[in-house]
Amino acid sequence: MTDRQTNFLLTDLYQLAMMQAYNEAGESATAVFEFFVRKLPEGRNFLVAAGLEQALSFLENLRPSDDDLAWLDQSGHFSRELIDQLRSFRFTGDVDAMVEGTVFFPDEPILRVTAPLPQAQYVETRLINLLHFQTLIASKAARMVLAAEGRMLVDFGLRRAHGAEAGLLAARASYIAGFAGSANVLAEREFGVPAFGTMAHSFVQAFDSEAAAFEAFAKARPENLVLLIDTYDTEAGARRVVEIAPKLRAMGITIRAVRLDSGDLGALAKSVRRILDAGGCGEVTIFASGGLDETEIARFLAMGAPIDGFGVGTSLTTSSDAPALDCAYKLQEYAGQARRKRSEGKATWPGRKQVWRRFDDAGRMAGDTVTTKGDPQGGTPLLEPVMRAGQRLSPAPSLSESRSHAAQAVASLPQALRGIEQAEPYKVEISASLRALADEVDRFIDRSAKRN
Amino acid sequence: MTDRQTNFLLTDLYQLAMMQAYNEAGESATAVFEFFVRKLPEGRNFLVAAGLEQALSFLENLRPSDDDLAWLDQSGHFSRELIDQLRSFRFTGDVDAMVEGTVFFPDEPILRVTAPLPQAQYVETRLINLLHFQTLIASKAARMVLAAEGRMLVDFGLRRAHGAEAGLLAARASYIAGFAGSANVLAEREFGVPAFGTMAHSFVQAFDSEAAAFEAFAKARPENLVLLIDTYDTEAGARRVVEIAPKLRAMGITIRAVRLDSGDLGALAKSVRRILDAGGCGEVTIFASGGLDETEIARFLAMGAPIDGFGVGTSLTTSSDAPALDCAYKLQEYAGQARRKRSEGKATWPGRKQVWRRFDDAGRMAGDTVTTKGDPQGGTPLLEPVMRAGQRLSPAPSLSESRSHAAQAVASLPQALRGIEQAEPYKVEISASLRALADEVDRFIDRSAKRN
Repeated sequence: MTDRQTNFLLTDLYQLAMMQAYNEAGESATAVFEFFVRKLPEGRNFLVAAGLEQALSFLENLRPSDDDLAWLDQSGHFSRELIDQLRSFRFTGDVDAMVEGTVFFPDEPILRVTAPLPQAQYVETRLINLLHFQTLIASKAARMVLAAEGRMLVDFGLRRAHGAEAGLLAARASYIAGFAGSANVLAEREFGVPAFGTMAHSFVQAFDSEAAAFEAFAKARPENLVLLIDTYDTEAGARRVVEIAPKLRAMGITIRAVRLDSGDLGALAKSVRRILDAGGCGEVTIFASGGLDETEIARFLAMGAPIDGFGVGTSLTTSSDAPALDCAYKLQEYAGQARRKRSEGKATWPGRKQVWRRFDDAGRMAGDTVTTKGDPQGGTPLLEPVMRAGQRLSPAPSLSESRSHAAQAVASLPQALRGIEQAEPYKVEISASLRALADEVDRFIDRSAKRN
Repeated sequence: MTDRQTNFLLTDLYQLAMMQAYNEAGESATAVFEFFVRKLPEGRNFLVAAGLEQALSFLENLRPSDDDLAWLDQSGHFSRELIDQLRSFRFTGDVDAMVEGTVFFPDEPILRVTAPLPQAQYVETRLINLLHFQTLIASKAARMVLAAEGRMLVDFGLRRAHGAEAGLLAARASYIAGFAGSANVLAEREFGVPAFGTMAHSFVQAFDSEAAAFEAFAKARPENLVLLIDTYDTEAGARRVVEIAPKLRAMGITIRAVRLDSGDLGALAKSVRRILDAGGCGEVTIFASGGLDETEIARFLAMGAPIDGFGVGTSLTTSSDAPALDCAYKLQEYAGQARRKRSEGKATWPGRKQVWRRFDDAGRMAGDTVTTKGDPQGGTPLLEPVMRAGQRLSPAPSLSESRSHAAQAVASLPQALRGIEQAEPYKVEISASLRALADEVDRFIDRSAKRN
């Protein structure tokens, strides 16, 4: 089996078709593409950039293997010339980007590629694939973190994530956004995302009684013991915990938490809390899971449900309310001339851009300006150089650095944007210089339309 | 980088925790788990099973590498005994399943695993991950195929699919469901899904004029030439096609199609058709893309839009209206005793099951019965043996066999279920023997609850 996630052929056929056409037409001047989101999903207030690390790794390592070239050759899709040219394919361009964990908004580029046109074009499909997904998940996870107000969140969503890579990168992106960790073991191995785990209903079912299952699990896994108590009847399960706790204590085993995974979790948490407290298990915390999302989490907190942590699965790893962002990677300049797509409803701002962010005296975000590169505005520029001539400028930040950056970014959001309800949009201005450039490009397009 | 999609550690931490506990408790009798969907997504009438091939390949090849074991050992999560036991881990169980492309409904198991408990439990996470995703996409794609009424459909969704594997497996699953192919090159290489491609807006923008871009592309890619005409103005783009067609014809190049990717596609298709026909380009077909789903496709057909094929991206590869299925892999029997989860709202039917499907005289599906295995009902049994003692019973069907099977299955759906609107649910009965078994399991659970 080919290694899918690093394969040169993980792309759209038209990227290779266009490369052949660019090469034959001699179009290999410097092109500038930018990746941005066109609009926020409904109900959302902000986005969190993620995936840059995987994007840069992709660009650094992108080259066809001999097998890839042999397959391309026999596929009959492309000319022998293209295949020969691909033998020396490397990405030699520049990248400027917002660091992972940065909060951003529609029309703000989070990544710019500057490279010979055939290269800059070719990388489009996988670059979008990588930046889109982690940004999608980090943006969703940040809402959950805000809703949970400091309670622990754990990613339980590998099973319904869309494949292996989605499960892994969702664990990474949600950790950047403030999750405590993930159930995904490979995410701990590959990214250092702390792995968490409890037990499944099937474990309880495999034993003749719930008590026997709890004791067997406790003996085998005495550290960080979490017992799942809803397999048959949640309140009866809580009473069972109270019954076996002294016996476990005598063996030196502490029950850390119980997990509820079904039913009316808010109401059950209250009755389970009462049962545990009355039974001398006041130190046992309550962990809830099962179809949760940020709306449910906020509802539990509003009703005062005594829940100490949440396992979130499907709604996180599929970003279920908005499983895709309306994003694009668009040509903004070619051979020194700014470019612009004018397709109905999809027009783009042309040229190389920078995003400047202003803060108020309390350190809260006070407004952004998108402008042409080299037209400084007040505040802090968000895009910074990260790759030159195909080489990274510095080692990748650690995941915990990206996580801190995200925490800081989310903390600086205006209060209204921190709610899970849709608020007044954050103010993103388009500068005069960018508007002037767009007009200039329009005049160029109109002239060339007349020329034809 | 580890190969993510075949990694032994691509699982939830609790699977390893439970394995350690099962081993220490000596619980390794035969367990039976079944994978099923609990309920249809809103607005849906049926599901299409897919992913069995990847699931079987996963089971056949599942074993930890030395690196995996070394990492597990130093992770500190598990006992040395578990790590030693994992050295010889193989899946040695049996699998019965519905073949890929089979239409199915809630409460009908599509796959059953029969294996020693630690194995049967361990495979849960990745089995769900694989079966869920392809079933999700095949089910979504089948609706698009029905809506398109024979028009060509192509998967354009790699860029917004959730990672590499999602893009690849979505291409495979949608092909099984009747798509003509995918833009994804690696899907052709890995699965033989035919690759299709046109050109991007950036190609048009890179040239000084749309006409120059069209000519450069036509010269480089004269076969199956499709021109993208909406970069600046769709109707002007169509007129450009009419203007350059004679010149290209003189060079022996035929324009096969134009692609529209923005604006009011239905109305634009009508005006573009008129421009092409009036300009002697009646043989040039119209291909539409850009934010399409089955509802849009049905709307275009209803309004008589002259569109000959559709490229479908995000809504397909993310199953945007329902990015996850409410599915589960549940313990149904252990050590010869049927088991049942009774959690609120998540109760399951116990024991090993079979699904029988009846057909009317016209070959249309007339009702299913879910029953205990070994209780034959009228019609055709849908679950069949596919793996015994860890070995496949026969070579995997080819992708085109699975595709034919899906076409036949969808063709045999009752007419009402073939619409994209929600219809009266298909009739799935629970047999008397299965109800009796559930009652028996309940009595067993209640007895053991009293015992404690």
